[in-house]
Amino acid sequence: MNDLTQTPEMIIGGMGARARNAAAILARTSSEDKAKALIAAAGALRDATTKIILANRKDMERGAANGLTSAMLDRLRLDEARIAGIADAVEQVASLPDPVGAVIDETQRPNGMKLQRVRVPLGVIGIIYESRPNVTADAAALGLRSGNAVILRGGSEAVESNRAIHAAMVAGIVESGLPADAVQLVPSTDRALVGAMLRANGLIDIIVPRGGKSLVARVQEEARVPVLAHLDGICHTYVHAAADAAMAREIVLNAKMRRTGICGAMETLLIDKGFAHPEMLVAALLDARCEVRGDAAVKALDDRVEPAQEADWDTEYLDSIVTAGLVDGVDEALAHIAAHGSHHTDAIVTADAATAEHFLQACDSAIVMWNASSQFADGGEFGLGAEIGISTGRMHARGPVALEGLTTYKWVVRGAGQTRP
Amino acid sequence: MNDLTQTPEMIIGGMGARARNAAAILARTSSEDKAKALIAAAGALRDATTKIILANRKDMERGAANGLTSAMLDRLRLDEARIAGIADAVEQVASLPDPVGAVIDETQRPNGMKLQRVRVPLGVIGIIYESRPNVTADAAALGLRSGNAVILRGGSEAVESNRAIHAAMVAGIVESGLPADAVQLVPSTDRALVGAMLRANGLIDIIVPRGGKSLVARVQEEARVPVLAHLDGICHTYVHAAADAAMAREIVLNAKMRRTGICGAMETLLIDKGFAHPEMLVAALLDARCEVRGDAAVKALDDRVEPAQEADWDTEYLDSIVTAGLVDGVDEALAHIAAHGSHHTDAIVTADAATAEHFLQACDSAIVMWNASSQFADGGEFGLGAEIGISTGRMHARGPVALEGLTTYKWVVRGAGQTRP
Repeated sequence: MNDLTQTPEMIIGGMGARARNAAAILARTSSEDKAKALIAAAGALRDATTKIILANRKDMERGAANGLTSAMLDRLRLDEARIAGIADAVEQVASLPDPVGAVIDETQRPNGMKLQRVRVPLGVIGIIYESRPNVTADAAALGLRSGNAVILRGGSEAVESNRAIHAAMVAGIVESGLPADAVQLVPSTDRALVGAMLRANGLIDIIVPRGGKSLVARVQEEARVPVLAHLDGICHTYVHAAADAAMAREIVLNAKMRRTGICGAMETLLIDKGFAHPEMLVAALLDARCEVRGDAAVKALDDRVEPAQEADWDTEYLDSIVTAGLVDGVDEALAHIAAHGSHHTDAIVTADAATAEHFLQACDSAIVMWNASSQFADGGEFGLGAEIGISTGRMHARGPVALEGLTTYKWVVRGAGQTRP
Repeated sequence: MNDLTQTPEMIIGGMGARARNAAAILARTSSEDKAKALIAAAGALRDATTKIILANRKDMERGAANGLTSAMLDRLRLDEARIAGIADAVEQVASLPDPVGAVIDETQRPNGMKLQRVRVPLGVIGIIYESRPNVTADAAALGLRSGNAVILRGGSEAVESNRAIHAAMVAGIVESGLPADAVQLVPSTDRALVGAMLRANGLIDIIVPRGGKSLVARVQEEARVPVLAHLDGICHTYVHAAADAAMAREIVLNAKMRRTGICGAMETLLIDKGFAHPEMLVAALLDARCEVRGDAAVKALDDRVEPAQEADWDTEYLDSIVTAGLVDGVDEALAHIAAHGSHHTDAIVTADAATAEHFLQACDSAIVMWNASSQFADGGEFGLGAEIGISTGRMHARGPVALEGLTTYKWVVRGAGQTRP
């Protein structure tokens, strides 16, 4: 399997063929048996705690020697508590409702033929991810719960940790009677293997990149396999003239400052010219140590505001910085979002229901919100249990993607000898 | 718009931007107003009958001079009855239920936030098609009914006919108050414009190729925009040991011979070794003037059988030819279909319900059938009203794709000031 004379295409081709065979078995494995396999995998992860920590220590040492930042090292670090958390998360996925086999709709034709659309797994899912080794377990669990085989390609910083986590999970899966090829880890971190995955049309049904912007951009640019991802989360909050001032303040502060590094964090604040207290919103952000880059009108509200440059309106800071501007009515806000947004999550704050409904309909984003913080843009917060990612594409699945997004359907026709006239 | 100094990218870029603007209007146009526009378009098509026939005559004359076959000329020909049929089809699409605005599911979170997934149009649909000019009207109607803007690129043989049909439809659409850019026709049949459409990521949301294999293959190979299509329809019928012999005969004859040129036509017949009358099925096909290419066992059943070559098992004949072989049980049939099928439509004939259900679950095709002719693989026959195409891909929509397949959804969140803890 690690034969170095193989080309990247041969390695991924072989993994893809084995994954397809495993997927055929997983597709007809009962919900109970898939859950049992995940519970066994979680147990195996707990049993392997020491091994995983030792493997992780090698990654940490190499990372420190290679000059990783302390933030990167913290993302990479595994300890007993974190491994227990990873195992818990796998068990939680085991408890989620299985989407496979659900009848989406059914009908009987005038000639008596019965038609159903039945949910089935997508097939083979490729996950390409960076430093956090917990993705190894999360992605494997979501894939297996929804009956898919998974091909994982983790980052080079976490190679030992990923191998140890993968080995433990496969031991649990095999112990429960399911195929080892249900979850495969790409054998080396050679970047050419990523390229081969991205071109593995027909072998891999969907690629999910999990990581920073440069990874997602490369995947979206090179992939011939369908990709489920978002590149940017340039999320707007529009405070309408009829917004309750106290509510607007709470939502704006939370949307920006609760966690600045997540994709649902507000990056641009649009305040209606008719809103009575724009200076209060701007001061609240500044007082919370958020840098505010404003247009001329916002700059006039507070000395501490910096002037916004043209590029600021199209920037995802993922930091304590916000771009802010005044707009003249909901349609100007919508036009700004259409021109500068990334179709991720955009929100309106208003007490006026008609304006809110107009915004919710006209704003063309995966998630549109009324009187809520954009930081809620998350599969867990939406009640989906866990998410494989958030999609800003328009095909297949949009917004937070969880188990249902990892399925497709087939048409099942039951007849009694019907022929077409 | 026809400025010849423009590059293909500039032409498609301009059309895409205009389409996006039109799509924003269509997305919030009521179901009634979209229906009215289509009824106006149908009326305009009828009013333009003479103009369309004159335009079509130019295409026919050029086609005859260029040596088109009589079958191709017949597909190209428009007369009063065919134009009336095209207008009727547009009216029929107007009467179909509008998928836009439907609430797919809804939930309330413990914090009181209300979540809905609401159907919205995909946005901008590109249709690339060949000789039949009726596609101009069909695709425009399906796109507009589901709130999408459409960019049409027809074949050079039908260029005058397509322009006349397009002009009439746009006149009807504009008369009813909707934007002319709702339905655009690519201004020239320069092949570079097809390439520009296929690379128009972000401008065109989905490409649907309608035509022969070489067109679909080029589109699937070159496209960076998601494609909804099937390349092959290598459909199998498996006659199980427990099949009723008379029913099997009717289904096999219908699946192969009703119309041999459609994608749902049977191309391979698999007969179980335990089926009592394989020679009867083979003779029935031969007597119906179908060429049978068989494996050794089938060849032994009837002198008229030709030997099947290796490539025959992977061939979509679209003609009065069938490949036939004996198999040992349902799992051998499933393995053959997995190895040689195209994931389009595959059927089992049997009186044994347990075997049928096993086949329906294990066969990984867009459409799986029990005791019915594969010729039913069609959106109209499935009760969808009309179809834009049949998809053998696994993402987004599978099998016959009609109005619902031309939509996506957005998450609508209604709160009362919730912030994330």
